[in-house]
Amino acid sequence: MAPNIPSLLAPRTESMAASAIREILKLLSRPGMISLAGGIPAPEAFPMDLLPGLYAEVLDRWAERAFQYDLTEGFVPLREAASGYLRRFGVEAGLEDVLVTSGSQGLLDAVGKLFIGPGDAVAVESPTYLGALQAFNPYQPRYVEIATDDEGAIPESLDAVLSAHAVKFTYLVPTFQNPAGRTLSLERRKAVADILRRRGALLVEDDPYASLRYRGERLPSIKSLAPDHVLYGTTFSKVFAPGLRVGLAVPPNRELGDWLVRAKQGTDLHSSTLGQALAAVYLDGGHLEIQLPRIVAHYAPRLDAMLGALEEFFPEDWSWSRPEGGMFVWATGPDGVDIDAVYRRGLERNVAFVPGRHFYAEPANAGATMRLNFTNADPATLRRAVEILGTVLREF
Amino acid sequence: MAPNIPSLLAPRTESMAASAIREILKLLSRPGMISLAGGIPAPEAFPMDLLPGLYAEVLDRWAERAFQYDLTEGFVPLREAASGYLRRFGVEAGLEDVLVTSGSQGLLDAVGKLFIGPGDAVAVESPTYLGALQAFNPYQPRYVEIATDDEGAIPESLDAVLSAHAVKFTYLVPTFQNPAGRTLSLERRKAVADILRRRGALLVEDDPYASLRYRGERLPSIKSLAPDHVLYGTTFSKVFAPGLRVGLAVPPNRELGDWLVRAKQGTDLHSSTLGQALAAVYLDGGHLEIQLPRIVAHYAPRLDAMLGALEEFFPEDWSWSRPEGGMFVWATGPDGVDIDAVYRRGLERNVAFVPGRHFYAEPANAGATMRLNFTNADPATLRRAVEILGTVLREF
Repeated sequence: MAPNIPSLLAPRTESMAASAIREILKLLSRPGMISLAGGIPAPEAFPMDLLPGLYAEVLDRWAERAFQYDLTEGFVPLREAASGYLRRFGVEAGLEDVLVTSGSQGLLDAVGKLFIGPGDAVAVESPTYLGALQAFNPYQPRYVEIATDDEGAIPESLDAVLSAHAVKFTYLVPTFQNPAGRTLSLERRKAVADILRRRGALLVEDDPYASLRYRGERLPSIKSLAPDHVLYGTTFSKVFAPGLRVGLAVPPNRELGDWLVRAKQGTDLHSSTLGQALAAVYLDGGHLEIQLPRIVAHYAPRLDAMLGALEEFFPEDWSWSRPEGGMFVWATGPDGVDIDAVYRRGLERNVAFVPGRHFYAEPANAGATMRLNFTNADPATLRRAVEILGTVLREF
Repeated sequence: MAPNIPSLLAPRTESMAASAIREILKLLSRPGMISLAGGIPAPEAFPMDLLPGLYAEVLDRWAERAFQYDLTEGFVPLREAASGYLRRFGVEAGLEDVLVTSGSQGLLDAVGKLFIGPGDAVAVESPTYLGALQAFNPYQPRYVEIATDDEGAIPESLDAVLSAHAVKFTYLVPTFQNPAGRTLSLERRKAVADILRRRGALLVEDDPYASLRYRGERLPSIKSLAPDHVLYGTTFSKVFAPGLRVGLAVPPNRELGDWLVRAKQGTDLHSSTLGQALAAVYLDGGHLEIQLPRIVAHYAPRLDAMLGALEEFFPEDWSWSRPEGGMFVWATGPDGVDIDAVYRRGLERNVAFVPGRHFYAEPANAGATMRLNFTNADPATLRRAVEILGTVLREF
């Protein structure tokens, strides 16, 4: 008699659906397919020329230590180096204030594990990052949606949500948001910081894209405006290499830091020591300062190509975000357009994107929306893809 | 007003105590301290001579791909190579049957997430692996203890436990167990396989040490005896390098495999691609076959030194396990010995070990026990440490 797996599963598995995006990504290996669906950095943006030297330096500096078990808190040389790196984002954090996570995802899982009991309220933007929903869902939250517009989350909506619900924490991606490509203005950042202080509320500020700014002026992180109220997270995935699975977290205080360490210890003991050591020498050697302009130079023309092609080819009743950085543009059409039908017709013509509803805690609120990634195709290919999508949209 | 962290924590955090062992390990940096407390491989057992070449091969074979996002299931070349490696343990698994985890800990967390609801029964050995308790605790299980003797878990006790409780799964480390160093005999393995089949029960077989056999004959995994009932896990931590955080899992069927992938996707997206790629070339190049005898040659004299010293220096009313491999010896004294007092007196004389109660789901059942690690000191140092402990014990 074989074990009956469904009868053994915990109730929380009901909220652990297979990712629709993973299923979409599986279709993309089809020859000739142009994918605007992914969310991954271009491999040409990796510092391949540096990697042999970085590894040699890791072996030279740390030898066996880079391959040994290490602290759950993270590899000390990386946390020391990160202390300087984080100042870019206005985040003041000493060695003891920096924790290493297994990518941003590792932080989101730890946050879910620590705070969310079944039915607990979590405030999220609408739309929000799919990976956050996937991290939080197993802990069975009740999502409360913060309204957004072209400038991102609306502070008055956040305030109303925090007033009406016993929210455990608010989750925001304030800069070049995934999926919507929107960025909170300085004014809104200050308003959010004020609300957090007034309400004694906790914010999880997920900040993977801030360094990918192609134009415009850098904005301060919300963490820098309300350090005692923000758990700040960022990652090396977009500025070094995602396959290393190394992220950084700065909690609002040591108490939460200790809890994050306990959660992580049960989950994976610690993140890859080698990956952390590589990130440490990447920062220490000043390589990020050289590589980042290269990454920006690689992506900026792609963003321009996509925005230009949308102007040229999308129907007049469509609008889209105009980000100054990041990896995504968000397009919104008139009510009544059947985006799933558009998606299928696009696939037939070898262009893929992700329908917007996958990024909503309440998919019914999605309307006619799509997420368009611009980092993984050259400008000419992006233009062709948007032209094809424009043709498809005119057929509806 | 700062956020009130304790008021925001989920109820599950009540079972997420800080690890006492972590606290113990922090004491060990004291100069002159001999630690029998750790559980980490000796850095001299890492293949440092191979590491430059392995990395060059990774860059040569996969270039950017080794640094890019990858499948949650694991890096395909590693899963292909692992298919051959797992045959050592009698585990037959094709590419699709092998999943990669972030060390063994990553598998244990996924198992907890999928199966354990608050109050659900999980059957564990008594004593059991502390890391498993730490992975499972946040999901709030009720532990049911399986009685053990010098040969490990007693099959009749397992059968009685499965008969009396609605057990979600049984967790065993059948070979060179951490902490007790015990190994289930072939006869018991067959009996356990029969019980699993008869009861339609699921076993999580955690098998990190099977390759660290210094004498005696290799035993088949329980997985090989009841493949449809066993979720098998092993790791590269003891045969390559723990800092890479790469483990392997073979579920009993695709259904559970799909669930493990969903759980892992929310937790960390995937394990380090670079770590997986290094493990793949380590296996593909036949390096493990050369390194493993070196590791065994390094550890075998340490086990002998420890067993010899226990014979020579421990009081007659103490007994201990006599493992043929692994990393630990388990010593048991007469009732009434105050092990915490022994522990403190040992520290005063610069010898550390871990009191046995840390390895019990029910610490009150621990009696006078201690876990002694023998992999991280040379034979002469081990002898001196055991001599000191023996002196301390005679004072009680």
